[in-house]
Amino acid sequence: MTIHQFEHPLNEKTRIYLRVEALLAQLHRASQFDDSDQYQLFFRALFDLLDIFEQIQLRSELAKDIEKQRIMYRNWLNVDGVDQNTLLALLKEVDEVHSNLMNAERFGVSLKEDRFLISVRQRFNLPGGSCCFDLPALHYWLHTPTEQKQRDALTWLQTLKPLSSALSLWLKLARETGQYRAYTAKSGFYQSDAEDANILRLMIPLEYGVYPMISGHKNRFAIKFIEFETNQASASDIQFELAVCC
Amino acid sequence: MTIHQFEHPLNEKTRIYLRVEALLAQLHRASQFDDSDQYQLFFRALFDLLDIFEQIQLRSELAKDIEKQRIMYRNWLNVDGVDQNTLLALLKEVDEVHSNLMNAERFGVSLKEDRFLISVRQRFNLPGGSCCFDLPALHYWLHTPTEQKQRDALTWLQTLKPLSSALSLWLKLARETGQYRAYTAKSGFYQSDAEDANILRLMIPLEYGVYPMISGHKNRFAIKFIEFETNQASASDIQFELAVCC
Repeated sequence: MTIHQFEHPLNEKTRIYLRVEALLAQLHRASQFDDSDQYQLFFRALFDLLDIFEQIQLRSELAKDIEKQRIMYRNWLNVDGVDQNTLLALLKEVDEVHSNLMNAERFGVSLKEDRFLISVRQRFNLPGGSCCFDLPALHYWLHTPTEQKQRDALTWLQTLKPLSSALSLWLKLARETGQYRAYTAKSGFYQSDAEDANILRLMIPLEYGVYPMISGHKNRFAIKFIEFETNQASASDIQFELAVCC
Repeated sequence: MTIHQFEHPLNEKTRIYLRVEALLAQLHRASQFDDSDQYQLFFRALFDLLDIFEQIQLRSELAKDIEKQRIMYRNWLNVDGVDQNTLLALLKEVDEVHSNLMNAERFGVSLKEDRFLISVRQRFNLPGGSCCFDLPALHYWLHTPTEQKQRDALTWLQTLKPLSSALSLWLKLARETGQYRAYTAKSGFYQSDAEDANILRLMIPLEYGVYPMISGHKNRFAIKFIEFETNQASASDIQFELAVCC
């Protein structure tokens, strides 16, 4: 039975975090340049990230959230039944990630000053704008050996390392707070209370032919299942698994 | 010696034609969905095409241009020294392509009415907007078997067949009007007259480390070679090949 895994953020900040995580993953996959179209995925993800950096103060938001996790985990120090070695290792990782974040440049600053990236970014969003005559410097660069392209990509990605480490850690710890449990959406509908939740994670058997439409906030949410073929709300009872993560 | 092949359109219409050609090629490559990120390339190209269709009357422009080629080739009927069999076969192809173009729907009409494509297009251009929570229907579709995705893609691409056949033919015939000849850009600069030219095609040895910046129109053009590393005009003599196509 094939499963449709699905994540839904319950606030705007987590929404941005999940988008940034997806963009960073796309950047890394595409940075091999072993396929002639990967450069499109690479630069699209890079410029989407720069757009997001211009919209929100990602570094300070993330530092605050990592700090909250640090405080929470510190409360477990010297608590009976909590594996202190694991906890200390985790707190060390949190400290490192937090300090690298505080010492990092404002995200994207050096990328936005890169002459080559500036020239590519200007025209990349034109419909069909990645032709050689629109972006001659990019097309010269595409003709350089794969190793050189990979080296350039590594240099650019290096500047995003503090972001990607901090975001990965925060999302890992957030996801670990939730545990999958089985539920039934009667007539395709399920709602519940939550407590300061950030992310809902769902596993939905594909055989139902439905996808979820989710609304809500950190303390209450509703899931409506929609039939893909008809685009209508499903009237069936849907058995799915759900993890509510803080 | 590695060669940097380069094409430059000398008018706005040909600029659009070359962009559309690149987008159609990207669509076809990505329509295999054999890599988890190809859907991004596929839908990006598809929606870029819809944007272009909304900007210019591509079908009537292309029909006029194919008609011009038909008239030109008809002038060679019964001319001594012209292979009449080849010419008749070509004219038959031109007739077919032109008639399919005239009978086709306005480009993109049925794609713009497709419920699924409408829902995807709405959010696809958000930075990082192809996450599952932004596009739940798309992510359900991505979980369907590859063969089904390929079938859907084929249905969508089928509606663009009259466009792609006509554009391929027009560009093939246009490119065939030019022949590569060797030139030297003294101190990195070359200029020349032309006669109703549409496309310049260049072959530049990569070893010079330069890319071309081209300006001009159908009757006159100038090529300035720029050093990739310094972003400055090159002062070297550059030997390159050039075909001027009508």
